[in-house]
Amino acid sequence: MPRIDYFTEANSVEAVNARMGEATDPRLREVMASLVRHLHDFVKEVGLTQAEWEVAIDFLTRTGQLCDAQRQEFILLSDTLGVSMLVDALAHRRPAGATENTVFGPFHVDGAPELPMGSCISLDGKGESCRYTGRVLDLDGQPIAGARIDVWSDNSDGFYDVQQPGQQPTWNNRGVFVTGPDGRYDFVGIKPVSYPIPDDGPVGHMLTRLGRHPWRPAHMHFLLTHPDYERIVTHLFVAGDDYLASDAVFGVKASLIVAYRPVSQGDTEWEAAADFVMVKPPSR
Amino acid sequence: MPRIDYFTEANSVEAVNARMGEATDPRLREVMASLVRHLHDFVKEVGLTQAEWEVAIDFLTRTGQLCDAQRQEFILLSDTLGVSMLVDALAHRRPAGATENTVFGPFHVDGAPELPMGSCISLDGKGESCRYTGRVLDLDGQPIAGARIDVWSDNSDGFYDVQQPGQQPTWNNRGVFVTGPDGRYDFVGIKPVSYPIPDDGPVGHMLTRLGRHPWRPAHMHFLLTHPDYERIVTHLFVAGDDYLASDAVFGVKASLIVAYRPVSQGDTEWEAAADFVMVKPPSR
Ligand SMILES: [Cu+2]
Ligand SMILES: [Fe+3]
Ligand SMILES: [Fe+3]
Repeated sequence: MPRIDYFTEANSVEAVNARMGEATDPRLREVMASLVRHLHDFVKEVGLTQAEWEVAIDFLTRTGQLCDAQRQEFILLSDTLGVSMLVDALAHRRPAGATENTVFGPFHVDGAPELPMGSCISLDGKGESCRYTGRVLDLDGQPIAGARIDVWSDNSDGFYDVQQPGQQPTWNNRGVFVTGPDGRYDFVGIKPVSYPIPDDGPVGHMLTRLGRHPWRPAHMHFLLTHPDYERIVTHLFVAGDDYLASDAVFGVKASLIVAYRPVSQGDTEWEAAADFVMVKPPSR
Repeated sequence: MPRIDYFTEANSVEAVNARMGEATDPRLREVMASLVRHLHDFVKEVGLTQAEWEVAIDFLTRTGQLCDAQRQEFILLSDTLGVSMLVDALAHRRPAGATENTVFGPFHVDGAPELPMGSCISLDGKGESCRYTGRVLDLDGQPIAGARIDVWSDNSDGFYDVQQPGQQPTWNNRGVFVTGPDGRYDFVGIKPVSYPIPDDGPVGHMLTRLGRHPWRPAHMHFLLTHPDYERIVTHLFVAGDDYLASDAVFGVKASLIVAYRPVSQGDTEWEAAADFVMVKPPSR
């Protein structure tokens, strides 16, 4: 009769991982084996108590139960623990000079109207107007024609249109612009304002217990796509914002902070200029 | 202006953990710092992709949403990944000779009737009868009087009474016995049968993907309490069961496997004998 190695504190990782069947998908096996090892190492390192384990079970349960079509509390948990930005970083190790990615966020909407360059996307008349200009370039500094620039921001009350249906005009502070041969873009929006992530659930409670706030620094979202280049999901952050150093979801990168300059003569109060540099997707 | 270390792949752990406020409870700080480190290490080690991250978010969300008063899918997840047994092992490092713990399981019910020694707890007349006998002892081999022994098992169809309300008699295969000065216990139940954990949810799907089955080897549950001794939560496992080496929740320990012996002359078909050894709680 073969000797059986039953589960013990010492062999816990091996005992669990040895159970995986031979036909298990190799990638799933790799991911699960690593997950079990790090999870058990964590439990052992801190000596997790049964009372703490119960708190964890309850936290995860409530986090799942708060999720619905409007709210994804597990993504919020991933965001606030830096996991979302880490996964994004691993997927987008770009060469120096290329525009960096940041979090996509939950407020993008497909199908925003495509507008001529120079159009204004702020439809509610609120906030401080700002002209956004710049170019879409390749790594050699050559303009990219046909780049599709999808932009969105909150209004001056700190809410996206989809958070206030009926209250904000549809497509308020959203638009799509397509570059011509010079790679230039040019549109008018507002100077966005900082806003808190939803903090009335388990994640908000966690942030409070950790002495953290739920605020994101003011930012304009950009999604750049082009058939020949890698998609860019990014923001422009407003230089000088109070929350740049403490973004609740760790989205800030130094290269994404832009100066908003007051305009003395012109039809907007501010202007912000930034070029975007796209790279070819990794060849397969 | 101080230089700010924004989140990067390289400093991700430090960036997240540095956010914790100075007033954070020291134990919470310790647990969260370790959790974030192991979580990020896992993501980096496997190079978790965005598609895999989406699968994980969806899995966790569905696991939370399946939980209700009858079903705790996150505990099932913890059980099947060996975390529950690990937490139990850390909390109960007992000296050699003491009875080992195992999982509590979801089917205990408070308030089962206290019965005289020798009573039969099987009320539905199903299954193969078994006499359980033994003693409750201290580490010196001295009998412990006044030990409260709460026992429960499935019936021969593999279900606990609470899983089949109206179908099984109330308190079927449950009872409480209190030892006298000789420390002996003696009751009649059935030889339990192996049963699967609930496998129609995300955890069952995970087990299938991992080439694992949902079965637990047959066992009789024991909960021993006494004012002067540490509580014991354990099972007796039926020697020879097909699933001893592959308990879906990793609950088997060699010391908990007992021989069920056929009875030639007597009023039961089987007999099982086991002593339990209680220890004093750690002094504070
Ligand atoms: Cu680890
Ligand atoms: Fe945003
Ligand atoms: Fe059980």
